[in-house]
Amino acid sequence: MSLSPYWLRDNCPCDGCRDPRNGQKLFQITDLPENLAAVETTEADGQLAVLWSDGHRSRYPLEWLDRAGAGDGRTEQGKRLWQAADFAHGLPEAQWSAYLADPAEQAAVLSAVRRSGFALLRGVPEAEGQVLKVAETFGYVRETNYGKLFDVRVEADPNNLAFTSAAIAPHTDNPYRDPVPTLQLLHCLRNESDGGDSGLVDGFRAAALLRAESPGDFAVLTRTPVPFVFRDRSTELSAEQPLIGVDALGRIREIRFNNRSIGTLRGLTTAELDAFYAAYRRFAAITLRPELQLDFRLGPGDCLIFDNVRLLHARTAFEQQGSRHLQGCYADLDSLAGTLAVLDRRAAALDEIEGLFEGEGAGEYLGEAVTMAQHMLQAGALAEAAGAPDHLVAAALLHDIGHFDGTGTELMQGRDNRHSHTGADWLARWFGPGVTEPVRLHVAAKRYLCTAEPGYRERLSAASEYTLQVQGGPMDAEQAAAFAALPGAADAVALRRWDEQAKDAGAATPPFAHFRPLLWRVFA
Amino acid sequence: MSLSPYWLRDNCPCDGCRDPRNGQKLFQITDLPENLAAVETTEADGQLAVLWSDGHRSRYPLEWLDRAGAGDGRTEQGKRLWQAADFAHGLPEAQWSAYLADPAEQAAVLSAVRRSGFALLRGVPEAEGQVLKVAETFGYVRETNYGKLFDVRVEADPNNLAFTSAAIAPHTDNPYRDPVPTLQLLHCLRNESDGGDSGLVDGFRAAALLRAESPGDFAVLTRTPVPFVFRDRSTELSAEQPLIGVDALGRIREIRFNNRSIGTLRGLTTAELDAFYAAYRRFAAITLRPELQLDFRLGPGDCLIFDNVRLLHARTAFEQQGSRHLQGCYADLDSLAGTLAVLDRRAAALDEIEGLFEGEGAGEYLGEAVTMAQHMLQAGALAEAAGAPDHLVAAALLHDIGHFDGTGTELMQGRDNRHSHTGADWLARWFGPGVTEPVRLHVAAKRYLCTAEPGYRERLSAASEYTLQVQGGPMDAEQAAAFAALPGAADAVALRRWDEQAKDAGAATPPFAHFRPLLWRVFA
Repeated sequence: MSLSPYWLRDNCPCDGCRDPRNGQKLFQITDLPENLAAVETTEADGQLAVLWSDGHRSRYPLEWLDRAGAGDGRTEQGKRLWQAADFAHGLPEAQWSAYLADPAEQAAVLSAVRRSGFALLRGVPEAEGQVLKVAETFGYVRETNYGKLFDVRVEADPNNLAFTSAAIAPHTDNPYRDPVPTLQLLHCLRNESDGGDSGLVDGFRAAALLRAESPGDFAVLTRTPVPFVFRDRSTELSAEQPLIGVDALGRIREIRFNNRSIGTLRGLTTAELDAFYAAYRRFAAITLRPELQLDFRLGPGDCLIFDNVRLLHARTAFEQQGSRHLQGCYADLDSLAGTLAVLDRRAAALDEIEGLFEGEGAGEYLGEAVTMAQHMLQAGALAEAAGAPDHLVAAALLHDIGHFDGTGTELMQGRDNRHSHTGADWLARWFGPGVTEPVRLHVAAKRYLCTAEPGYRERLSAASEYTLQVQGGPMDAEQAAAFAALPGAADAVALRRWDEQAKDAGAATPPFAHFRPLLWRVFA
Repeated sequence: MSLSPYWLRDNCPCDGCRDPRNGQKLFQITDLPENLAAVETTEADGQLAVLWSDGHRSRYPLEWLDRAGAGDGRTEQGKRLWQAADFAHGLPEAQWSAYLADPAEQAAVLSAVRRSGFALLRGVPEAEGQVLKVAETFGYVRETNYGKLFDVRVEADPNNLAFTSAAIAPHTDNPYRDPVPTLQLLHCLRNESDGGDSGLVDGFRAAALLRAESPGDFAVLTRTPVPFVFRDRSTELSAEQPLIGVDALGRIREIRFNNRSIGTLRGLTTAELDAFYAAYRRFAAITLRPELQLDFRLGPGDCLIFDNVRLLHARTAFEQQGSRHLQGCYADLDSLAGTLAVLDRRAAALDEIEGLFEGEGAGEYLGEAVTMAQHMLQAGALAEAAGAPDHLVAAALLHDIGHFDGTGTELMQGRDNRHSHTGADWLARWFGPGVTEPVRLHVAAKRYLCTAEPGYRERLSAASEYTLQVQGGPMDAEQAAAFAALPGAADAVALRRWDEQAKDAGAATPPFAHFRPLLWRVFA
């Protein structure tokens, strides 16, 4: 196996090379010596162990070595380039209420924006300013000279043709900004006029068609910086970017297309200008092909979310006097993609935890009459019945997750597996201290209660009395006072009591799925 | 002269091709016919007149044809690439109070950020949240996962090494965002610890050095997309961009440099990875050259504004227990450049107006005993003395600007030059309706007062009585009622009274400069 040594070393996952709290690298690339080499490599237990020429040792999971790059999902690669007919059976859409209530529905909407460049939310309350709340469900509003939000309706003294009743051909917004807002939201409050329909064109598809039909024109548009300008009394913006932006590997990544605000190209020869305009006209003609434009009509309560560096949007003219009122705002794709990644990661975490409950959780629980999974589900149910806050119900449900690595038997053989710490650390990948600290302290809480509460120790089960000894026995007075002062101590004591009760072989036990909505709330 | 026909036509400045209100183009490039050609071109009066093959006629100022492109000022071109010694005589800095009070000072600060990549404001109030107010003086705050603003101080559970006391090598922030925030502000509230000094490195300079010393390495870094990643419990961000971004013409445009958050490069051969890491190490070594790093220490009340896609920032380690507290936020270069352009444009407008007062304004004022400039300065002074609001003082000062095209004599020869409309339209390039509408209506106000106010007409000067006839004579009752209902009518009547009084050859007349601060306030 021939691996690039600096690449491999730069990815060393050890705690000395990366901060375990945030995964950030703790060394500079220049800290590595010249002529770094792996002097010894060994494969064992699914790991590649490397001894480096500077004495450092690294271990890499073998499956990690072969992993493919995910990319950032912003180029044409992995997107669904479309034409209108592809949506003959319906648009990517969801009800606002379902989007809010169900993380899977939210993920589907955000995923559609990422893959197809747009999605439509229906039934969004027809309230002014609501569009900002939609944006805040996945990211941050990008304020511009048009405000945090802008009203799209006929204005007496418009500084932009958007604020008239004129037809507007397919275009992207704000090309004169750099960074350009990468997302746009348009929320319809009223649309009672004749006309004023909406259209979307996949600019990546249009650019890919240009590349296929006329590669020379495509190349011209990717390499000619175009000045975009906007001026009004209090604003003067300019940005110089090509109409078709490609990444370093030539993949289509960004479209800027807005004839209204193209400024004057300068510094090119007449032949270069002729070539640019020929290519521009050909590309513009492609964007106007009827088969590319998806037409629909926004009705009250509809909110369109779309990729403003990919999709071109258009509207038909409408009667001057008809009542049409949209509110819009800008936001950015990076946060949307990040929110989607976190939703996916959390769904995967819940699946993984549910898998543990169904797999290892079915195992014996330290000699008690219930399985580990039954014990934890009962503890969660007891917390819920007691009206505990969500984070504490979650802690009760998950408190013994540290046993799930099969080390429970070690504990019964007299070795403290410190399962409360193992569990808390494992949960900290997803949950905050409101969940992890009661889990971390629930063993200490037993040792505390043995000291602080007369009669408590006598009520312990035989197994629990045994493990008490392994875990260090009752606290002394000083230890107990220190414990009581810890954040999460009160929650840990409450958890401990449900823990003691949750060993009833005859009790009805809710399934794990019962707790999923609660766990989603705790994530948020 | 050989001009590209579509280029020339796309830039036609006529009112049919461009909306005169906002300069936006009213046609699509595809609206132009195939094989468009100029069938007749004529140069006269400094204009090129073109008759097009589709019958359209365009006129272009000859000086416009030869104008060079300004670019958007974002590439290395036109910037001052620096090393530390270039600031041996001081940093680009200003007092916060001067920055707020004097538009020229504000322009100097913003211009320094644009040219050198940074500037320092001193004496910024040491209040929490103040950094947001600094950003709002030139643009919009960009909210991220770190909040609208972030506190840079030692945190118990840091999700980023910035929030520890560790030394941090030169880097750019948020490379895992796309769009990356292009500006950063850091406002010092306290810095009492040992260490915690700041450093800045011009990344454009470092990249230019790499290009000069090792062109192959430079090329590798411009064409290798690098994955940047950030993950914490509730965030997962990734962006794939090269360390050195160049524009379509190969000019350095954007630096992303942050070893802490470089992820795992995938999909490259071992040779490509070796080449990337060799180039990356060489570039990193250049950024660490002591002669490149400008060191200074932020003290309480200092606010550093810097270009986050050009400058690398660093800080030395500091004592854990020392009190160091900065607040930061992100913003964007496009708005900063736009604010600077508007400041420059407004300064030029005031210079132009002052030039008119000193030039044409020195001419005879329609037979009165004062010059036009004296008349207008007196009108402004009277409005000011009467405690009129700024916009109305400005209107009084500028009300006869429409005479300054030398057409006043036309009026005296019996042709209405409609100078109130000419003036209002000319002023509308810079001023809102609060200024323009009283100017527009000040002639009508005379015709109104002759009807509405007994004895008013008798007090008119002889010249004013003469022009009254040319302008249409007194209004009838219906006209007067319609006038009184117009927005700005009351202001126009007030202006009219100062207009009548401002013909006193013996009165002290303030210079134009006296009104400049007021005109700046009206702009804002």
